Amino acid sequence: MHPFRSHTCADLTKSNVGDSVRLSGWVHRIRDHGGVLFVDLRDHYGITQVLCDPDSPVFADVEKLRSEWCVRIDGTVKARDESLVNPKLSTGEIEVYARDVEVLGAAKELPLIVFGDQEYPEETRLRYRYLDLRREAMQQNMTLRSDVVASIRRRMWDVKFREYQTPIITASSPEGARDFLVPSRLHPGKFYALPQAPQQFKQLIMVSGFDKYFQIAPCFRDEDPRADRSPTDFYQLDMEMSFVEQQDVFDTIQPVIGGVFEEFGKGRKVDQTWEQISYKDAALWYGTDKPDLRNPIKMQRVSEHFSGSGFAIFAKLLEQEGTEIRAIPAPGGGSRKFCDRMNAFAQKEGLPGMGYIFWRDQGEGMEAAGPLAKNIGPERTEAIRQQLGLDIGDAAFFLGGKPAQFEAVAGRARTEIGRELKLIDEDRFAFAWIVDFPMYEADEETGRVDFSHNPFSMPQGGLEALNGDPLDVLGYQYDLACNGYELISGAIRNHKLDVMIKAFELAGYDEAEVRKRFGGMVNAFQYGAPPHGGCAAGIDRIVMLLADVANIREVIMFPMNQRAEDLMMDAPSDPTSDQLMELGLRVLPREE
Amino acid sequence: MHPFRSHTCADLTKSNVGDSVRLSGWVHRIRDHGGVLFVDLRDHYGITQVLCDPDSPVFADVEKLRSEWCVRIDGTVKARDESLVNPKLSTGEIEVYARDVEVLGAAKELPLIVFGDQEYPEETRLRYRYLDLRREAMQQNMTLRSDVVASIRRRMWDVKFREYQTPIITASSPEGARDFLVPSRLHPGKFYALPQAPQQFKQLIMVSGFDKYFQIAPCFRDEDPRADRSPTDFYQLDMEMSFVEQQDVFDTIQPVIGGVFEEFGKGRKVDQTWEQISYKDAALWYGTDKPDLRNPIKMQRVSEHFSGSGFAIFAKLLEQEGTEIRAIPAPGGGSRKFCDRMNAFAQKEGLPGMGYIFWRDQGEGMEAAGPLAKNIGPERTEAIRQQLGLDIGDAAFFLGGKPAQFEAVAGRARTEIGRELKLIDEDRFAFAWIVDFPMYEADEETGRVDFSHNPFSMPQGGLEALNGDPLDVLGYQYDLACNGYELISGAIRNHKLDVMIKAFELAGYDEAEVRKRFGGMVNAFQYGAPPHGGCAAGIDRIVMLLADVANIREVIMFPMNQRAEDLMMDAPSDPTSDQLMELGLRVLPREE
Repeated sequence: MHPFRSHTCADLTKSNVGDSVRLSGWVHRIRDHGGVLFVDLRDHYGITQVLCDPDSPVFADVEKLRSEWCVRIDGTVKARDESLVNPKLSTGEIEVYARDVEVLGAAKELPLIVFGDQEYPEETRLRYRYLDLRREAMQQNMTLRSDVVASIRRRMWDVKFREYQTPIITASSPEGARDFLVPSRLHPGKFYALPQAPQQFKQLIMVSGFDKYFQIAPCFRDEDPRADRSPTDFYQLDMEMSFVEQQDVFDTIQPVIGGVFEEFGKGRKVDQTWEQISYKDAALWYGTDKPDLRNPIKMQRVSEHFSGSGFAIFAKLLEQEGTEIRAIPAPGGGSRKFCDRMNAFAQKEGLPGMGYIFWRDQGEGMEAAGPLAKNIGPERTEAIRQQLGLDIGDAAFFLGGKPAQFEAVAGRARTEIGRELKLIDEDRFAFAWIVDFPMYEADEETGRVDFSHNPFSMPQGGLEALNGDPLDVLGYQYDLACNGYELISGAIRNHKLDVMIKAFELAGYDEAEVRKRFGGMVNAFQYGAPPHGGCAAGIDRIVMLLADVANIREVIMFPMNQRAEDLMMDAPSDPTSDQLMELGLRVLPREE
Repeated sequence: MHPFRSHTCADLTKSNVGDSVRLSGWVHRIRDHGGVLFVDLRDHYGITQVLCDPDSPVFADVEKLRSEWCVRIDGTVKARDESLVNPKLSTGEIEVYARDVEVLGAAKELPLIVFGDQEYPEETRLRYRYLDLRREAMQQNMTLRSDVVASIRRRMWDVKFREYQTPIITASSPEGARDFLVPSRLHPGKFYALPQAPQQFKQLIMVSGFDKYFQIAPCFRDEDPRADRSPTDFYQLDMEMSFVEQQDVFDTIQPVIGGVFEEFGKGRKVDQTWEQISYKDAALWYGTDKPDLRNPIKMQRVSEHFSGSGFAIFAKLLEQEGTEIRAIPAPGGGSRKFCDRMNAFAQKEGLPGMGYIFWRDQGEGMEAAGPLAKNIGPERTEAIRQQLGLDIGDAAFFLGGKPAQFEAVAGRARTEIGRELKLIDEDRFAFAWIVDFPMYEADEETGRVDFSHNPFSMPQGGLEALNGDPLDVLGYQYDLACNGYELISGAIRNHKLDVMIKAFELAGYDEAEVRKRFGGMVNAFQYGAPPHGGCAAGIDRIVMLLADVANIREVIMFPMNQRAEDLMMDAPSDPTSDQLMELGLRVLPREE
């Protein structure tokens, strides 16, 4: 017999009754039922109940076992009494009568109980991650992550993409976030950098003629930590294809990502049609470029109804250039109590408040209530109601000003209203492509024009478009929004060097600067670059959505804490003076 | 029609004759045959011949095309004349008559010609890697690598392993080689390290109860570069399993690695039986722990035949303790010319020379020739011949002394003899497990005992064995040798903390030191550690063997040069003073 196991802890069924078996695993729980000991023996695959009575030759040994000891148990499979069958366990019809026990690894007193759902501070969970990971939810999250990544790979292979690995120790690439640097020993004083993303490399792979690339790629950004972001490294499904337009990228990636959500969504509804919404419309309708489309609320422009109306605040506002009034319809929100609560929410978000109208039936037919309705009068109120398609029991909220100044709050109010009114279908994954991102934005104070998103995207209209107002230029750039998160970001790339130089010039970088910062790619574009585009999808985010958890550390095996420390491995730590000497570095004394 | 292509350059066959098609790709070659232009248009998938005569509306445009321009071509598919069919191309039956041409990306004068096999200095190839990668051999090597890695993943999944990602920014792990360090910005003066291998993490995954782990893992070692080693990062198939013995690991990984060689070996013979050879036997038989078993030569101990013989050098040598005489049989090497050449080889390797005997037929039956045969006389000579199983036309070479001092040279002589006599079957992948590695070795000068290989391996015999002579202790540690290379290295791990402390003590590390250096793992072993073991296989090496190339840079997309520089991306480079300031570092002035 194998020295450790004849079966896993999930294998044994009634068909094994009478067999001599050997199991190895961890002591999950021990119960003493009137002198009979029951041990739930757990391994990665399942749990098997082991029992031992005073007649057993190893009763004294089993009595000594404690939770989380790793043990081997030999015994005989017995059928459970009908009344004791546990249908929740694959092994619930049997138990194993212990005849021999070997302790493979004993355990000290536990800082964290594996059995059950007790909550522990994150410090404890991370310091004793190997115990935390034994818990059922973490076992499930980690296997889910592994299975999701495997499924993504299979799906990419199926559509003829190949995975190519790009360098991890490479050049500093000023792509927005901060680089992690790696000092060079062979070239003291010089530094490598860890890639923020394989952006330049994947474009170089296209220039090298590989046509279809993907990689489950580690990405490194030295960012200040927050709950939904790893402070050091994270993984992306990174992909790129040559000779394609935007729609080709969509048609390629939708079945992959949609398929993964179907496969691992546990029956939650997965949208089959992924609407394309312009960046501008998304801002208007949802107040964000990553809308949660499970929330049916769509904001609307209602300026005309307030222009010259008796509601002086809005009427005056509209006399200024670039201002608008927008409405957030709230179906089912037609009570003063609700409207006041939402008004308070807006005040907490830093606005003076949100005007509102709600419609009720006071026995004499529909009545529009709220101060706003009185100010603008019944006709305008009715016109608004009709535009928004509202009825008795519904409400509408109003925000005015320059859209850029209230859009974000409007978006959060929309979310809050949807949540409060339970309009959000929690069992659904709702996807939309956000397209037509502006290439540039102007700094509000300085007026200085800079790239609003990815500087490597192809401007719509090419070189010609760059001769007009930069702020009017849209890019072939897109995001995929899912349930309020940005799941994918991508673009058709700018593979034409002249267009690229011009595009950077508009953002204030001269040709020399571009050649210096992106030399590898700029040089390559001089040797027959193909049109190409692609995208990158956040693996951690996908798994978080599927596992329905809000903290990224629930879906990473060995995460850093929020201060970018690994408590289990003790990182970062002090270098030795030999190491610093070899690297030609000195640590500066800290200013306290 | 799609803006870039209706077909790839490998798609079109006779069945498309008459079709209007659109192709995109690179101008591979242009030929002018009496005023008719032939363009070989190339993409990742293949080559299609495009032709254009002066009647074509785009003749003038096609005339301007140059090699490696990226172009779109519209045209009509025509059958080639029977006599012009090219059976080597999938599209060899047709050609495309050009009707429209668009230059998607022009190219400057090329520093490296993609067409053909011209050799270029490595500097040129790495600086213009995107051109180098367009060449047929590099396209094949990269797709081979991708397909090998994909196949490995499929095979690991098939036997129920899951891939789990381990941290890349982590703690310094003193595992032998030098770490790459990463300065921390949030904790100035402290450093992370990039993992030399996920050794501790994969063991922690076992302690966490995951049972079967693998990862195509990036590994980082700051080593001085050489041709068969990447100076920065390389990839391993890293795997680990719980509740296993050594043979379980062998039984799991052999079908995976063997299967990959079958799948991608292009018909080369793949050994089905992987012999297990002890480290000691490998040293005796092959003079190395990574023998090339395609070479049938097996060395033997022949001391008894020289002990007290008339060959005074060996006879005297054998009077010293720990000395031996070993023979390298050389079937087919029975000529003085060959024997002298091998003797010269040994002298070049720093030995005084190799004694030899060779057997020839001088018309009067077998004769043993060479000075050695004369010295030891016919009886001993014949006994040697019989032990080695040699015959007329064969030879044997002899080396004597302390094995440790001549084993390596003997191994190289065996290789040289096998090569010279063409005994090596080049079309074969020959595998053997090298087992029973010694846990410790003594420094020849100081006598100080240290680990000879992996300190985390379980010593055979456990704690008890550690109470005897450390130099007698063998480990459950193994390598897989293939064609003279170490392809895999692995071990059953030492999961028992008391055994681990004792094992380190023998190598001169006290408990406090062990706890300090390997704190993460040591702590974990106190909480119910399972028995476990695994191995790691070098991806780059596997692909090099399959692609039959000797330089690791032939199988890596964007490699560093031998000075650990990326010439294309310009890494490493000078940090900005802001970056250094944020990290709390100063670069020391260089001593010239």
